[in-house]
Amino acid sequence: MKMLINVPETVVADALRGMAAAHPSLSVDVDNRVVVRRDAPVAGKVGLVSGGGSGHEPLHGGFVGPGMLSAACPGEVFTSPVPDQMVRAAAAVDSGAGVLFVVKNYTGDVLNFDMAAELAEDEGVQVAKVLVNDDVAVTDSLFTAGRRGTGATLFVEKIAGAAAEEGLPLERVEAIGRQVNESSRSFGVALTAVSTPAKGSPTFDLPEGELELGIGIHGEPGRERRAMMTSREIADFAVGAVLDDLHPRGPVIALVNGMGATPLLELYGFNAEVQRVLGERGVSVARTLVGNYVTSLDMAGCSVSLCEVDEDLLRLWDAPVETPALRWGR
Amino acid sequence: MKMLINVPETVVADALRGMAAAHPSLSVDVDNRVVVRRDAPVAGKVGLVSGGGSGHEPLHGGFVGPGMLSAACPGEVFTSPVPDQMVRAAAAVDSGAGVLFVVKNYTGDVLNFDMAAELAEDEGVQVAKVLVNDDVAVTDSLFTAGRRGTGATLFVEKIAGAAAEEGLPLERVEAIGRQVNESSRSFGVALTAVSTPAKGSPTFDLPEGELELGIGIHGEPGRERRAMMTSREIADFAVGAVLDDLHPRGPVIALVNGMGATPLLELYGFNAEVQRVLGERGVSVARTLVGNYVTSLDMAGCSVSLCEVDEDLLRLWDAPVETPALRWGR
Repeated sequence: MKMLINVPETVVADALRGMAAAHPSLSVDVDNRVVVRRDAPVAGKVGLVSGGGSGHEPLHGGFVGPGMLSAACPGEVFTSPVPDQMVRAAAAVDSGAGVLFVVKNYTGDVLNFDMAAELAEDEGVQVAKVLVNDDVAVTDSLFTAGRRGTGATLFVEKIAGAAAEEGLPLERVEAIGRQVNESSRSFGVALTAVSTPAKGSPTFDLPEGELELGIGIHGEPGRERRAMMTSREIADFAVGAVLDDLHPRGPVIALVNGMGATPLLELYGFNAEVQRVLGERGVSVARTLVGNYVTSLDMAGCSVSLCEVDEDLLRLWDAPVETPALRWGR
Repeated sequence: MKMLINVPETVVADALRGMAAAHPSLSVDVDNRVVVRRDAPVAGKVGLVSGGGSGHEPLHGGFVGPGMLSAACPGEVFTSPVPDQMVRAAAAVDSGAGVLFVVKNYTGDVLNFDMAAELAEDEGVQVAKVLVNDDVAVTDSLFTAGRRGTGATLFVEKIAGAAAEEGLPLERVEAIGRQVNESSRSFGVALTAVSTPAKGSPTFDLPEGELELGIGIHGEPGRERRAMMTSREIADFAVGAVLDDLHPRGPVIALVNGMGATPLLELYGFNAEVQRVLGERGVSVARTLVGNYVTSLDMAGCSVSLCEVDEDLLRLWDAPVETPALRWGR
């Protein structure tokens, strides 16, 4: 696979330099791999720190800014960041109100954020954690015990980020983050395999004429392979899988997410089918977001994430946000 | 190539239904293929209408909203919209202050927008036009006499859109649109060929290990093929080609654009190289935008667009914009 890179070894550092140049609102420490909103720490505000392997952009660095993350720690491609990054990030954003770690459920991430929490607490930073495990496709997977953290990470970061911005205390921001995760489910579909810079070729084999249902964001195996399906059929399957597990009584926020290489034209068409299924199943949709938000490098495919919201969560979702990848006003 | 679609015939209509569901701020006429900002016509405001073949999303529908386009007319994939769409759009957005058509320089688009202008004027709408022809790669091409219109379309739509939002009269909005086009140049590079839904396979052959320099946004041939290059080398070539033609004395706005299938991680890394070349060439960069904005379906690759700005143009660029794909406040 051809890639727009120099050498695999510098991909993450190169990207961080490019981010720094594009976004003066971010303070980017390229050497230590920490992306911080420039005005951090904000007095009296809980800090929100997330991170994970690179290759899922704009997650997480693109979600740093007022109303969402205070800092992000990018690891190597598809590799957990190290505790030192998280400790630095926590120190940079802590105003004394404490820091919430938003952790996707992958073994490496969980271990390293746990260790970072201990180290940060030794330095006097109060730390809480929210684990994101929204992917209904499989329990236990290549890099995970339990369910994987995928698209709902965006919901948790946006809504807990808004709660922190409002000045809520750490235990409330943490509780809201947990509530968002518990109210969210996702399901992903791959049309092509993903190629990492280090490998330079597809990390698994997905023949022309087949797709993989229930794929993870690192190309981890899904539930099953089938002959290629239409957008309509994929929406029936993916939304069906989510609704087998989440039974929303209230309205939902829908994220129709591209894996990276699927054209926006197709994602919008897919959204029409997702909305059709939700309508048929009697689910009321309060907000919809369509685009590449939680990606898997050059993988073609999509995922559907739903988050059931009450009035409070919806208000926090609608609250102003000002990050490179997600921004809106009141 | 596998695609997330139902059948090729409904791709555009499906996408419009999905857009309508995702963006309540837009009024989407799926049958007649016109996307209009919901509050149009805005009293006393010049209307901005653009359009072109689908497959370049978010261009143009994703740029409809306060501060940018009043309406967009999507054609079939890589096919000009028809005059009837543009006439409807003009009628929907004209407040009496007239309408500016923003037209990318492709033979079909030019002919159809010309015809639409005549028809709209017959109906009493005052129409002006700005032709976008920023691509320095080739003069005359598969679908074009003269230079192609590509990335700079975003500059014209944003800056002329802000001028219209400020209440400037049609002739001023037109003059500003022309100034932006004349101050802008672009150059694109393809790493892979593009596949259209109708064809279902790559529209040209681009072997592994080669790239095409100077490609158009429909996969029109570029200047030359070479053995695969690094991000650094591509930035040297692309920015060099732009600066052979544009000699900015003032600062520029830089658009580092993805063609659709290139990961954002790579685009940020490429941006670092673009900024390096601009620095070496003594070009001052006022603003940078990195992402998929003027795409070519599932093509991997990138383009660089530069727009030389004075204080006025930069102020209009910075003015608030609220569209699905581009939004910022003051």
